[in-house]
Order: sequence, then structure tokens, then C-alpha cells
Amino acid sequence: MDDILERFLRGERRALARVISRVENQTPEGREYVRALFPRSGRAHTIGVTGGAGSGKSTLTGALAAEYRRRGRTVGIVAVDPSSPFTQGAILGDRIRMQDLALDEGVYVRSMASRGALGGLAPTIDDVVAVMDAFGFDYVLIETVGAGQDEVEIAGTALTTILVNNPGTGDDIQAMKAGIIEIADILVVNKADHPGADVLVSQLQALLALAPAGSRRPPILKTTAIRGEGFGALADAVAEHRAYLESSGGLAEQRAQDARHQVLSIARAILLEQIRAATPAEELEALVLRVASRELDPHSAAELLAAAVRR
Amino acid sequence: MDDILERFLRGERRALARVISRVENQTPEGREYVRALFPRSGRAHTIGVTGGAGSGKSTLTGALAAEYRRRGRTVGIVAVDPSSPFTQGAILGDRIRMQDLALDEGVYVRSMASRGALGGLAPTIDDVVAVMDAFGFDYVLIETVGAGQDEVEIAGTALTTILVNNPGTGDDIQAMKAGIIEIADILVVNKADHPGADVLVSQLQALLALAPAGSRRPPILKTTAIRGEGFGALADAVAEHRAYLESSGGLAEQRAQDARHQVLSIARAILLEQIRAATPAEELEALVLRVASRELDPHSAAELLAAAVRR
Repeated sequence: MDDILERFLRGERRALARVISRVENQTPEGREYVRALFPRSGRAHTIGVTGGAGSGKSTLTGALAAEYRRRGRTVGIVAVDPSSPFTQGAILGDRIRMQDLALDEGVYVRSMASRGALGGLAPTIDDVVAVMDAFGFDYVLIETVGAGQDEVEIAGTALTTILVNNPGTGDDIQAMKAGIIEIADILVVNKADHPGADVLVSQLQALLALAPAGSRRPPILKTTAIRGEGFGALADAVAEHRAYLESSGGLAEQRAQDARHQVLSIARAILLEQIRAATPAEELEALVLRVASRELDPHSAAELLAAAVRR
Repeated sequence: MDDILERFLRGERRALARVISRVENQTPEGREYVRALFPRSGRAHTIGVTGGAGSGKSTLTGALAAEYRRRGRTVGIVAVDPSSPFTQGAILGDRIRMQDLALDEGVYVRSMASRGALGGLAPTIDDVVAVMDAFGFDYVLIETVGAGQDEVEIAGTALTTILVNNPGTGDDIQAMKAGIIEIADILVVNKADHPGADVLVSQLQALLALAPAGSRRPPILKTTAIRGEGFGALADAVAEHRAYLESSGGLAEQRAQDARHQVLSIARAILLEQIRAATPAEELEALVLRVASRELDPHSAAELLAAAVRR
């Protein structure tokens, strides 16, 4: 390995940035970095922050990071939400709000595309989290948009998952009903100064009351991210969740689930690569056109591709 | 094949329901049905309806279906959105609103889980759409929650994608910035009676003005789904988009893209199945635990799994 790794291990942020770039680009070199650094990961507390677009979770992520900084802890942030102000496409105001963090040496923010080659979270998100973890951040916050598939994948990556709810729309509660709530370790009603906040808290309580007896009830906290209110309590709740995981044996289980998810998703990416390698592009296109014209059904076509990998 | 297929081809809804169930359960029989019916698909106009939770897209899907019924056309609806009132987890009021449709012989509604074994849309969604298409519905509406991964996958499945925007939260525009808007063929500002509707229309216009010159600008329409207002214009816009696809050659391209997506996603599912078949469960767990304990990195573990498939 070149001296980047050495500088990384000395704690140089520029080396961190370069390692992450190579990991993100999935170069063979990037993979070597992951191999070398992975044994040093597993010490950070990884926290997923998820919620619908407009739930204020970017601001919340920033405010939680600021709380950890007040406590003297270091924070890495991975923003996977395409609407996040941490990402390139940020809109004016939000970006400015994040400037304070950007100037802080104890915080490192990285935004990432959420898409792999064929849907699903890019496997590199796990790798980037592992790299930040290995760099020595006490907390790694992973911000993702949460309505659909992604937040479930994030739940597989983070030790603690915070679901941010927005009292803005009454329909939010619907999205929650459908199992999204099941992945949450902590529920936050953000924009607590909004008139609908208390109603939403009651609705969430009613929803949680339906959970099977004996299962852990996630706490419901109120925050006003834009004013930084409620973050002491939120950081405490995160710590309590960690303590719960450690005492219940859930930590080992969570780590195993993480690993299972990562390994299978990388294996899937490898096999997909092998599909492309085993079938020349023109052949794949010819097959695709036969399906498009309804001459061949997609299952038969897919079996041909899978068979080519095995040959 | 048993007589179910025969009854399906005669247009019996009960046979349709049974075929879909088997397709959904991914039984070998279900796959035979897809093989048999796939050549009859490709005639329906498939329309994806996507948008954030609470954007009112379920109501919009229902109102658009009602408009097609007024025009004497038949409609299949596949609801992939976990928060959709079409799905099991529906909340009172919305479900009642959908009752009119449920009693109509020219409409068939099917709700589906959005999750495959390891993330990503279950490949069966494409199959269910193909089955509805083969049954002879003029339109197949696919409703999915749209903030993250899913809507991109849906865009690969539907000829026309409608993105539903909600003037409720000012932050919506952010989610759009980040490429989600790129997949939309038609933009709808629903809840047009909301005070923020016109502002949102202007914001969308400004956003579209940034698109590269020469590319098609999706029209922006206003609807009030709950009162069924604006759906004549929306149905017309869908027809115009279809005409555009046909005249520009985009239709063939879209069908090829669909097919590519389907074939690769099924191939991926087959290979994932083969990973599980090639590596006994205990062996997989042992590997996972070595990763969880940081003894082995996930890439090396995944390569072991992929190699086992090839052996």
C-alpha cells in the first residue's frame, strides 16, 4: 500500500477523503483499503437517520452531530439521501446551516449516491461507513431518505435507527403503519413547535401500543432541529439504546445481521458483474430485444444469463 | 396447464386473481403462467404513479382510474406503496374512498409487498404487471412510494411515469432536485386548492428550465384528487406522452429498457438463490460471524460465496 494508508492511520483527513473516494469508485485499490481497514472498524456507534423527504432529518442529523461535538465526541456523517443538503444538489439555505459543521475538525461529512448499478444501495455505503469507523470517529451518522426500500437497508447497517417524523402532513402515520416503524429504535417527532406535533406523538403512541407484548418499545422524542432543541435527550436515548443492545445480546445479533447483509449484497454485485462478463454486450442486447418484442419471456432470458455464469 | 389459464383467457377475474397469487408466490407453476402469458402482454399502457408519502398519490391513482372508466377503458392497479390505502395496512377513510372502484368490474386492484429477499423491488412486480397486461386491461397503474430507490425501478417498468408533488411541505422541491424529477414524464401538483400550489408550480417550472435544451419538458398539471378535479387533462397528458414516445422512437427504447431491467433483476434473483443453494446455511452463518467479529472482511467473504456458485 502507498503512504495514504499510513497517513490515514495517523488521522489525516485528506488521506481519509482519498481512501473514501477510491472505495466509492470500487477500484481494486479501494477494495484493498477496505480489506486493510475493516479489522479496525466496529468501534464506532453507527446511527441511521431516516424519514420522508421534508421531515427535517438533514437538519436533525446536523443538530445531533453538534450535540456530540458539545460532548467532545467526533462524528462522521454519510448522507445517502439525494435530497439532503449535505449532498451536491443542496439548496442555498440548508447548505449555509451546515457550514458550522463543515469547519469543525471533529466532523467529517461525505455525501454519496444511493444507487448501485441495478438498484439497491450501492454496497460501497457499508464500506464507507466501515472506513469512517476505522478512522476513529466515535459516531457515524448515516442519513437516508426513508420511504421505501432504502431505510430498511440502512437499518441493516446502523446499530441504532432513528425515524424522523414530521407533523406537517397527517398522512405520515400511514407510511409508518406499514412496517417502516418496525425498523425504528427511536422515534423522533421533529418540528416539535408545529401545532400537529402532540397529535402525532399520540398517534405514534397508539401505534406502538399495537406492538407485540415483550418487544422493546422505541421511545418517542420531540425535537426542533432548526433551533437545536431536544438533542441532549436524543443523544441520551441513543446511548440507552446501545446499553439495551449490549445487555440484551442484541448487539452481537445486530452485528451479525449487518455482516450478513453486507456479504450477500456484495456477493450479489459480484455475480451481477459476472453476468455482464459472461455474456457479451451484443448478446445481452439481442436477448433483451427478444424480450422487448415478447418473443422470449424474461425468466427464460434470465436463466440463459445465469447459466452462462456457471459455464 | 390446468383450466385456470383457460378461464383467464376467457376473462374471468377469479382466474386472474389465482394466476397473480401463484406468480407472486414465485411457484414453478407461477413461472409457467408468466411464460404462457408474456407473449400476450405489451398492449396495455403502463403508468407509474410515484411521489412521497402523503402526496395523495393513492387518491390520485384512484381518480385517474375513475377517469379512464368514464372513457370506457379498463384499468388494473398494482399498489406497491406500503402506505397505500389499496394495501392491507390501509387506514379507514382511504379504504372507503376506494370502495367505488372495488365494485367496478372494469377495475382490478392488487396490492403487493415491495420487498424482495434482499432489497430491491421483488421481480414479481414486473410479472404481475405483465399478467394484468395480458388479461387485457387498457391501462395498468403502478402506485409506489417515491423517495429513494423504488421509483427509479418503477420508471423502468412503466411507459409513463407520473410524479405527484404535494404543496404541503416546502422541502419537497429538494427531493426533486436530486434526479427524481428526471424520471418523471408528467409532473402533477396535487392538492391544487392548497395555498402553496401555485408557488410549487413556479418552482417546478424553474427547475425544469434547468434541463438540457432539446430534452422533452414534462408538463406540469394541477389536480385535486380528493374531488376528482383535473383528471381529464391528466389523462390527455398521458395520451400525449404515449404519442410522443411513438413518434420519437422512445417507445421501442423504453420497452428495451424495461426488458433489460427485468431480465437482469431476475438473473440476479436466480444467482442469489444459487448462493444460498451452494453454501449450506451453517457455513453461511459461520462466514457471517467471522465478518461480524472483523476477522474477515465482507468482500473476501462475498468472493467465497460467489466462487461456491461457480463450482
